[in-house]
Amino acid sequence: MLSKNKIKFINSLKKKKYRSEKGLFIAEGFKLVQELLEEGAEATLICATSQWLEHNPSHARAKIIEQIEVTEQELGKISSFKTPQQVLGIFAISGGLSEADDLAGQLSLVLDRINDPGNLGTIVRLADWFGIENIICSTDTVDLYNPKTVQSTMGSIARVKVAYRELAEFLEPWSRHPGFDIYGCFLEGENLYTAPLQNKGIIVMGSESHGISRELWPYINQQLYIPAFTRGKATTAESLNVSMATGIVCSEFRRRQWVSANHSK
Amino acid sequence: MLSKNKIKFINSLKKKKYRSEKGLFIAEGFKLVQELLEEGAEATLICATSQWLEHNPSHARAKIIEQIEVTEQELGKISSFKTPQQVLGIFAISGGLSEADDLAGQLSLVLDRINDPGNLGTIVRLADWFGIENIICSTDTVDLYNPKTVQSTMGSIARVKVAYRELAEFLEPWSRHPGFDIYGCFLEGENLYTAPLQNKGIIVMGSESHGISRELWPYINQQLYIPAFTRGKATTAESLNVSMATGIVCSEFRRRQWVSANHSK
Repeated sequence: MLSKNKIKFINSLKKKKYRSEKGLFIAEGFKLVQELLEEGAEATLICATSQWLEHNPSHARAKIIEQIEVTEQELGKISSFKTPQQVLGIFAISGGLSEADDLAGQLSLVLDRINDPGNLGTIVRLADWFGIENIICSTDTVDLYNPKTVQSTMGSIARVKVAYRELAEFLEPWSRHPGFDIYGCFLEGENLYTAPLQNKGIIVMGSESHGISRELWPYINQQLYIPAFTRGKATTAESLNVSMATGIVCSEFRRRQWVSANHSK
Repeated sequence: MLSKNKIKFINSLKKKKYRSEKGLFIAEGFKLVQELLEEGAEATLICATSQWLEHNPSHARAKIIEQIEVTEQELGKISSFKTPQQVLGIFAISGGLSEADDLAGQLSLVLDRINDPGNLGTIVRLADWFGIENIICSTDTVDLYNPKTVQSTMGSIARVKVAYRELAEFLEPWSRHPGFDIYGCFLEGENLYTAPLQNKGIIVMGSESHGISRELWPYINQQLYIPAFTRGKATTAESLNVSMATGIVCSEFRRRQWVSANHSK
């Protein structure tokens, strides 16, 4: 059974302030909780219906500190869903990027001022798909542990590391790293489809409304844009959604890598 | 001033039943209404604040049947937004695909059972970006004129034609059209990056949860998939969001077209 205190504690984690204070976040639903447990995330608390507990008696790598059986009705008191889905877990916020992470040989994403939780979640999901391990966000980007973002990562939050940094400070040393490129996606620049792209580097994406902050421009050595196809129409969509643009850019980087790996065989 | 009857009439259009009956839909906000008017869409009614009316006294191609000046407070009574944005318009639903439209020389999209209004809106927007003029949806795909979908097209609803059809019936004659391919996006098939792609044809996208309906498979002559990059991880994201996958596939079709046009010069 869930005590009043537990309910209060869980609901407090819907606010960023308390999440940061406690270093904890909420994940809900069968699939998401399962993926987090399978990836070895530490669950401070699992609140689950008897149905879930029966079908998930043990998890090979699961670290569950406390587990409480709850009724559907109790779950409703802590869930953000209209229809709660069997299980809600409280997990420890992991550190994101650590000093030991060497980005030099890989492709990473930098997000500047992304405000929409759904967009951030979608970007985490596609980074997972395209094998991008690290995302570095500006400090004013929406919180990864916002319940809406957590849900929209569809479990990829368990596999992609997300850190928050002062971006100018973060990018400056990488901009001096030999043979390492910092790409930025703009509305003008080099055509993504023909620009030279390496299979390592940093891709900077800005917000839809403001683009990439001017203070970051000096660190970007390749401006890319995604060409629109007008078919003779006078006007076309003004822009693409930022998560869409990120997906298209990442796909093109990985396509090049795929093609060059298969040509050099 | 807005009469009670007008308010009731406008709010009734938030339901699909009444939209279909009247052949009308709601578009809100400065940018969206402006784009619709500029593209020549017929506005049965424009409800706007004095601020909007002052700055938009005439539209070169605008067909506005009735125009009412309203207060911010009145706008609040008909708006779907928390903060109404100066103007709300009632527009005539256009016919979508007509018999006269010849798809043979172009690239078109077919959407099977897309339930999420935001996904449909995002797909309309990217179709606009990539110069795809026609989208044909299964009859059980979410309504294009749902206010949420209309808003998420970001104005592209004015430029892309969307029709609802029985898809098997629609695809069957195209599957017999010489030199014309019907592509389908699956989790398995030919690698998108290396599969032969033409700059004309039909791309079929299915829902995230159910994929493309089995009854449509016989009409698809090229199964495509977007390769994931695991970097040695055991698991990766299970899938991409359907609008994301559509964007990546359309981008690759247009990239090929771009490259072949520039090689043949």
